[in-house]
Amino acid sequence: MVKIAVLGYGTIGSGVVEVLKKNKDIIARRAGEEIAVKYILDLRDFPGDPYENLVVHDYEVIRNDEEVAVVVEAMGGVEPAFAFAKGAILAGKHFATSNKALIAKHGAELIALAQERSLNCLFGASVGGGIPIIRPLNSCLTADVIEEISGILNGTTNYMMTKMSDEGSEFDDVLKDAQQKGFAEADPTADIEGHDACRKIAILTSLICGQQVDFEDIHTEGITGITAADIRYAKAMGRRIKLLASSYKMGDRYCALVAPCLLDESSPLYGVNGVFNAIFVRGNMLGDAMFYGSGAGKLPTASAVVADVVDIVRHKHVSITMEWNPEKVELEDYRRLTNRYFVRTSAEPAEVEAAFGEVSYVTAEGVSGETAFLTDEMDGYAYETAAGKLGSVLQSIRVK
Amino acid sequence: MVKIAVLGYGTIGSGVVEVLKKNKDIIARRAGEEIAVKYILDLRDFPGDPYENLVVHDYEVIRNDEEVAVVVEAMGGVEPAFAFAKGAILAGKHFATSNKALIAKHGAELIALAQERSLNCLFGASVGGGIPIIRPLNSCLTADVIEEISGILNGTTNYMMTKMSDEGSEFDDVLKDAQQKGFAEADPTADIEGHDACRKIAILTSLICGQQVDFEDIHTEGITGITAADIRYAKAMGRRIKLLASSYKMGDRYCALVAPCLLDESSPLYGVNGVFNAIFVRGNMLGDAMFYGSGAGKLPTASAVVADVVDIVRHKHVSITMEWNPEKVELEDYRRLTNRYFVRTSAEPAEVEAAFGEVSYVTAEGVSGETAFLTDEMDGYAYETAAGKLGSVLQSIRVK
Repeated sequence: MVKIAVLGYGTIGSGVVEVLKKNKDIIARRAGEEIAVKYILDLRDFPGDPYENLVVHDYEVIRNDEEVAVVVEAMGGVEPAFAFAKGAILAGKHFATSNKALIAKHGAELIALAQERSLNCLFGASVGGGIPIIRPLNSCLTADVIEEISGILNGTTNYMMTKMSDEGSEFDDVLKDAQQKGFAEADPTADIEGHDACRKIAILTSLICGQQVDFEDIHTEGITGITAADIRYAKAMGRRIKLLASSYKMGDRYCALVAPCLLDESSPLYGVNGVFNAIFVRGNMLGDAMFYGSGAGKLPTASAVVADVVDIVRHKHVSITMEWNPEKVELEDYRRLTNRYFVRTSAEPAEVEAAFGEVSYVTAEGVSGETAFLTDEMDGYAYETAAGKLGSVLQSIRVK
Repeated sequence: MVKIAVLGYGTIGSGVVEVLKKNKDIIARRAGEEIAVKYILDLRDFPGDPYENLVVHDYEVIRNDEEVAVVVEAMGGVEPAFAFAKGAILAGKHFATSNKALIAKHGAELIALAQERSLNCLFGASVGGGIPIIRPLNSCLTADVIEEISGILNGTTNYMMTKMSDEGSEFDDVLKDAQQKGFAEADPTADIEGHDACRKIAILTSLICGQQVDFEDIHTEGITGITAADIRYAKAMGRRIKLLASSYKMGDRYCALVAPCLLDESSPLYGVNGVFNAIFVRGNMLGDAMFYGSGAGKLPTASAVVADVVDIVRHKHVSITMEWNPEKVELEDYRRLTNRYFVRTSAEPAEVEAAFGEVSYVTAEGVSGETAFLTDEMDGYAYETAAGKLGSVLQSIRVK
């Protein structure tokens, strides 16, 4: 029997305990032995909870108990999660987490620390919740140079974009609805400004290039500027607006960014709606693949965490190979990416053509008093130069 | 450096050699050492081929060479592939294959043989070509009871169904086109009768239940009976016809079948068109997930085979855990599955209602002189009883 400790008894932590209880037998069969929760660390008490006796308030109890072989972190945030993770690994314990903030910041360091001790630090649930993507990248797509990885990595914003598209509503109304339904937090900044997606694409990019990518280096735009009028234009073009987090290989480097994009039906990401997430991968041999599923939520995320624990139990004395060198990699300037742009401006067509040359004009029902158009393919520098000549730009969205 | 032998220098075998050459450096980095092809087994010679010197005609040369650590089989068919696989493993070599016929028939036996010797028998490319599904099932979805797995597992038939739908053409014309384009073989039986998809769902079902599922036990219908008129009805209903290979958990058993199904837009498989494959998985904790990509083709399939070789190099002295017990499992009778049926008959509505009770009638442009309808949800026994009362059934397709 393997004893584990769960840090944090919130949504994910209680989900982990529930998955281990509900699927106990099949998990034991697949892991090769039973997995039992010995401690739950939380600041709170949970009187009446069936596991209330397992709750401890002092991490030292867990760290010092040699019987605990695996520490599962489900608290979120960088500290004290990082101190707890380090403490666990230094005490000879395996570590599993769903915490993307922790892994984006300290993943390489924790992996190295674990590997030096033939331990494992796994984080399958940190990107895409229940969607298996970390391990497939790490152990299935190993024969390929990854040329692109683009994901809808944040369920809150995808729910909001889908609702704006379905109902024609404005951003603020949809945000309120998402908050009421529990799909957005009281402080929604991390989601709607793209910070959450940014950390996730930083993790994915680190794994595909094998080196540390700092999330601070990734150009990040959120969805707060998207209006009902933009959605109308998108519909008129047969497109949908999605918040995409992407990395593209350019020469020897990767170029990463998070930004709203206009997708058409030919993209496999076009049909990914509501709270679902999906990750599109293009390999130089594999071609196109996509992974789709519930990107968040208690049980899907907990399922991925428990799958990591099963993998740890199967690899108790050996580190699973993972390529994530702590040496920081320089990203290519995102302005070097080329794509078409959708632009709305109060400038007249003559001014637009003076700045951009030939463009395709777009009209949308119920939007007037402005000029909207699609540019040709151009890089970010050329776009900025042309847009600078326009005077007023009301909106600009990349077209993928 | 790890030396491997490739059996069969056809499409997949030459693809494996090409992937290893093209992505040599990144593969070496990920595997931890260089992977080199020492032999290629084929009955033919390949004068002028850059690897002509590696070609041997006698398998014994490979089997007896202790330097060969991994045998990659890309010949297809059960024999002599099985004899070669067994020979390799008994000689202490790891084995990787893309051969679904071999694995559906002898997978459990080969895995057991390999595990007894701390070797690996991997077959990631046998289902879904380049789509990572075997390993995710085996190592990512381990915390879940899998309640359903449904796949579009055959690119040839999916190409044909997509083309019939796009162009309104008849089956025979689309088959000829697929043969001309190289998407269908001269003898297309294995694809269009569903035998290929049947072997693949047998492998997936074996993996999710952990025991041997005999493909002969799986009820299998092909697409040869689908007509342009059926496609018109499907369109009138906002649906598409796909050849689905599925397994559903019913109590303690699984129920598997291969059959054309009518899907609507709410299914993530609805948008999977052309030669693409996709596998939908529903876990009791994970919820819904889908894996999508190129299901066949030289390089995508070879990429998956090489990824298996990389995993073998990472696990040279230990067997990767895989749950596939040779003990045969009994499948549930597929007639116990409940679904709606789409039925075309020359019977009059009064007869239809006498047999099926209340139904929803369907009409399609350009089809007349018959009655078409959708039943309520019913199991296969109830359907057969009701259909028996009708006298003439022109067509019947499951609705999912």
